[in-house]
Amino acid sequence: MIKRIESAQNSRVKQWKKLHTKKEREKTGLFLIEGRHLVEEALKYKTVVKEIIVREGEEFSAINIGEANVTEVTKEVMKLLTDTETPQGIIAVCEMPKPCKIELSSSPLRLLLIDNVQDPGNLGTMIRTSDAVGIDAVILGDGCVDLYNGKTIRSTQGSLFHIPIIKGNLTTWIDELTRENIKVFGTALDNARDYKEVPSQQQRFALLVGNEGNGVNRELLKMTDENIYIPIFGEAESLNVSIATGILLYHLRG
Amino acid sequence: MIKRIESAQNSRVKQWKKLHTKKEREKTGLFLIEGRHLVEEALKYKTVVKEIIVREGEEFSAINIGEANVTEVTKEVMKLLTDTETPQGIIAVCEMPKPCKIELSSSPLRLLLIDNVQDPGNLGTMIRTSDAVGIDAVILGDGCVDLYNGKTIRSTQGSLFHIPIIKGNLTTWIDELTRENIKVFGTALDNARDYKEVPSQQQRFALLVGNEGNGVNRELLKMTDENIYIPIFGEAESLNVSIATGILLYHLRG
Repeated sequence: MIKRIESAQNSRVKQWKKLHTKKEREKTGLFLIEGRHLVEEALKYKTVVKEIIVREGEEFSAINIGEANVTEVTKEVMKLLTDTETPQGIIAVCEMPKPCKIELSSSPLRLLLIDNVQDPGNLGTMIRTSDAVGIDAVILGDGCVDLYNGKTIRSTQGSLFHIPIIKGNLTTWIDELTRENIKVFGTALDNARDYKEVPSQQQRFALLVGNEGNGVNRELLKMTDENIYIPIFGEAESLNVSIATGILLYHLRG
Repeated sequence: MIKRIESAQNSRVKQWKKLHTKKEREKTGLFLIEGRHLVEEALKYKTVVKEIIVREGEEFSAINIGEANVTEVTKEVMKLLTDTETPQGIIAVCEMPKPCKIELSSSPLRLLLIDNVQDPGNLGTMIRTSDAVGIDAVILGDGCVDLYNGKTIRSTQGSLFHIPIIKGNLTTWIDELTRENIKVFGTALDNARDYKEVPSQQQRFALLVGNEGNGVNRELLKMTDENIYIPIFGEAESLNVSIATGILLYHLRG
């Protein structure tokens, strides 16, 4: 039987609403996703979906919800729970995946290391691009915007459910990748090589990209095998970090 | 002498504020830009800057303002004029550039044709990328989000002042480019060729990209010389249009 909530004062509504804060997400290990496409992707890729919240009058019988609880809410309650301007009428409460181990001896093995990217749209788009190009895991270093921010999740277009995304210390990661003979390419504007000179179709590599304004932390750049750049032919000072990531990943993957 | 405005009711303040609407921008041929970097870029690249509005206490003597009028306003007035969360204390009223003619017989000649892109962040980033890769002009077809939307302008990072951006009918454009023997590449998912099979380092080409959800209009795709796609190796359904544009432009430019 489907439960129904009509009151904005309901304690479960208040609890769900709190999941819009990073603090509450980290405390509970839960996060919200919104919209039919994301909910379907979460269910399809075996993310643990704890609850599904549907706006009254919404048709969702085509979604295979498995064992998730479904609660119907009024339009007013749904408005409290959404952080989008045009809510799609369906929200799910999901469990953050457990940290997973990446087998560093495998081949091919392709990783993206992200240092201190601040914009949720950029982070989400970089995850979507990583998924498209067949990256095996994305490593989020210190200072990155929260993966479970609503805007980040929307920008991934569901790719956060397709590939492992791991929080980690990038110094430790680069050390370990180097020990495993995985080539680490940093991105930098000086002391760097035109990316087109670097061979395409690499089987085992990690690309390291960084902050929108300041690029990759200089200490990390000293640890890489090689640093590369994308030439600027016009008057722009730089490329957006998610664009640069797309160009470089497609080049390295080949 | 610098004028000063303290009242939110001042008629000039009301007039400036109206420039946040597309209707008023089109009526007056004026638009707002915000932040030191954009104002400097506008001045440097000979955009007509009609007025500069500075928040009281802001230091801007390092900016070469030329002949623009400067008005100082209170913090409260500045808040009314900004559409960002953390205003930078300087806004300029600029004149939209006059339509310019592109010499289609020149070589190299590289163009980006944009069909119906809706997201201001995507459009702005595509203009920034076009600038970086040395595109000669960007053609905005029907249905594109407004170039002078605040979010679009911010995402260009000033590149809208660096290269010609022309509104036009894409059917007419493709016809004319074809007559001039400029190769037009459409982007499509079916009946298309892997972009890596298309030679890099093209001297005269136009790339045609399209809407976030629906891609390029099918009638336009029928008119191109060739349609190309970027392979998806993972589980993502597609790439973000601005990412795809970056990968393809850097490939074609070579």
